[in-house]
Amino acid sequence: MKNQRWKEPGPRYLEHSLSIPVRFPEVDALGIVWHGHYVSYLEQGREALGRERGIDYLSIRERHGLVIPVVHVALDYLAPARYGEAVEVRTRLHPDERARLLFTYRLFGPDGTKLATGLSVQVFTHPDGTLVLNRPEFYRALCEQWEADLQG
Amino acid sequence: MKNQRWKEPGPRYLEHSLSIPVRFPEVDALGIVWHGHYVSYLEQGREALGRERGIDYLSIRERHGLVIPVVHVALDYLAPARYGEAVEVRTRLHPDERARLLFTYRLFGPDGTKLATGLSVQVFTHPDGTLVLNRPEFYRALCEQWEADLQG
Amino acid sequence: MKNQRWKEPGPRYLEHSLSIPVRFPEVDALGIVWHGHYVSYLEQGREALGRERGIDYLSIRERHGLVIPVVHVALDYLAPARYGEAVEVRTRLHPDERARLLFTYRLFGPDGTKLATGLSVQVFTHPDGTLVLNRPEFYRALCEQWEADLQG
Amino acid sequence: MKNQRWKEPGPRYLEHSLSIPVRFPEVDALGIVWHGHYVSYLEQGREALGRERGIDYLSIRERHGLVIPVVHVALDYLAPARYGEAVEVRTRLHPDERARLLFTYRLFGPDGTKLATGLSVQVFTHPDGTLVLNRPEFYRALCEQWEADLQG
Repeated sequence: MKNQRWKEPGPRYLEHSLSIPVRFPEVDALGIVWHGHYVSYLEQGREALGRERGIDYLSIRERHGLVIPVVHVALDYLAPARYGEAVEVRTRLHPDERARLLFTYRLFGPDGTKLATGLSVQVFTHPDGTLVLNRPEFYRALCEQWEADLQG
Repeated sequence: MKNQRWKEPGPRYLEHSLSIPVRFPEVDALGIVWHGHYVSYLEQGREALGRERGIDYLSIRERHGLVIPVVHVALDYLAPARYGEAVEVRTRLHPDERARLLFTYRLFGPDGTKLATGLSVQVFTHPDGTLVLNRPEFYRALCEQWEADLQG
Repeated sequence: MKNQRWKEPGPRYLEHSLSIPVRFPEVDALGIVWHGHYVSYLEQGREALGRERGIDYLSIRERHGLVIPVVHVALDYLAPARYGEAVEVRTRLHPDERARLLFTYRLFGPDGTKLATGLSVQVFTHPDGTLVLNRPEFYRALCEQWEADLQG
Repeated sequence: MKNQRWKEPGPRYLEHSLSIPVRFPEVDALGIVWHGHYVSYLEQGREALGRERGIDYLSIRERHGLVIPVVHVALDYLAPARYGEAVEVRTRLHPDERARLLFTYRLFGPDGTKLATGLSVQVFTHPDGTLVLNRPEFYRALCEQWEADLQG
C-alpha cells in the first residue's frame, strides 16, 4: 500500500450532494450497512456529479472513447448507517494537473452525523486498457473551466 | 482522509492464501470484476485467516462478546480480474501493539499477475458500539504468541 | 417446485409506482442488468408501497412484533435494462383471505417497454421463526379497509 | 405471471452438487441469508454443472456464439441459511425438446435441512438479442447424448 502517493487534494473543488436510501440487503447481521456497500455509495455520488459535468462513465466513453477505471479507493468509517435511513453523499471533484480524476467524499446520516469519508482516483485508458499518460484535451479544458468558475 | 495515520505495518506477519472463483454478477459492463467487489474478497481472505487463528467475526463475538467493525479500508487496483478465473487473496495479519486488527492483502490472477493490494483496519467494540480502548486480554495473548511463533 | 400453488390473484389491488435508477455494478458483462438484481427491485417496490400502507418490514416489526419473510418469488424476464436508465416498478398488493402478503410486479423501461413481471409471497412469523397461521388482527383490518377503499 | 407455463420437468436429469460458503454480506439484519442472494446460488450451481457439460455461459458464447439469458426464475424458501455455514446446491439439468435450458434446484443446509427449491429457464439468443427458435444443433446432440447416458 503506497498510501502516501495520494497527497491531500487542493483547496478548490466542485461539490455535489446525493441522497441514497439504504436498501434492505445492504444491511448486515449487525443491523448496519455492510462496509463494502459504501464503495457503491461513492460511485453513485461520483456519477451524479459526473453527469452534471460530462465526466460520468457513459459520457466519457461515448463522447471521448475512453474508460475511467478506479485505481485507488479508500474509506474511513466513523458511524453506522441503518435501514430506513438515507445516506447523504457529498462528493467533491478536485481539478488536477495530472491525467486522473480525483474525488473525495463525506457521507452523512439523517441527523447530520458524519458516517464516513472517502477518496477515489481514476485514470483514463483506451478501450483496450492502455493508459492515457497525459491529460486528454477535453479534460484539460474542463479543468481550466472549473478552475475559472471556482475562482470567479 | 487521514491516510497518513496508517503507517506501513511491521515486517512480521501471519499469512494465508485463499482462492476465490469470480462470480458472474461480479463482472461489470466492461467484462471485468467491478472494483467494489474486492472489498468482499478482502473480507473473505481475512475471515479465512481469522478462522485459523480464532479471530473471525463469529469467534470474536461468541467467545469474547466483542464486535470488530472495519474502520478503514484501502485498495490499489493494478490489473483486472475476469469471469472464469479465480482470484488468489494472500492475506497478512500484522500483530499490533494497539487495540486494532491490521491486515494487508495482495491479490493475484491465475497467471500470477498482481491484481490489487489492500489494507484494512478493525477495532474492537462492545455490542452496544462503545470502543475498546486497550487491547483485549485474549488479543494481547494471541499477539504475543504470534510474535513468538514468527521469531521461532 | 409447486408453482401451481400460487394461483392468479384477484382483480382488486393497491398499486404503487417507483422509479429505480440502474446502478453501474448491477450491469453484467453483457451490458444489461443481471437478472438476480430484479429481486431487489421487487423488494424496493414492495417496501415503498408498504411504507404507504404500514406493512413495510420496519413497521410490521416495530408496531406488531412480527417478521414477514419471503417464501416465494418468481420472475419472468422480457427485455433487458441498461445502465443510464431507470426501471419503473409498478407494485400491486392483493388483499388476501390467508395469513400472507401477496404482491405482483410489472417492471418497465424508460420508453414504456415491459421488462419483467414478478410475484412474491410473504408469511408472518414471530421473531423466533414460528409461523403465524391465521391473519394477524391488524392485517385482517387492513385488508377489509383496502377492500372497502377499492370498492368505493 | 404465467406460472402455469413451466410444467413439471420430466423424470430424467443430470445432477450436480456444489457447496457454497455463505458470505458475511449475504446475511441480512435478521441474521439470515437475504432471499435475493439465492438467485446467485442457483447460478453458481448451474454454471458448475454447465462447465462439466459444456453449457456454461463462456463455453456457449465462445464455442457456439450464443448467449443464454435467464427468462424465468422461481424460488420457494423453506428454512434460513446463516453465516458460518455452507449451502449445498443440488442442480438438476432436464434435457428438453425445446430450444431452452431447464434447471431445477434443491438447496440444503449443513445438517441436511432443505432450505429452498428453485427452477430456472434460459433461452438461446444471438449476441444481438434475437431469439433462437429451434434447438441449436450442438444442444440437440447434447440432449440426445444425455438421454442415452441416463437410460444406460
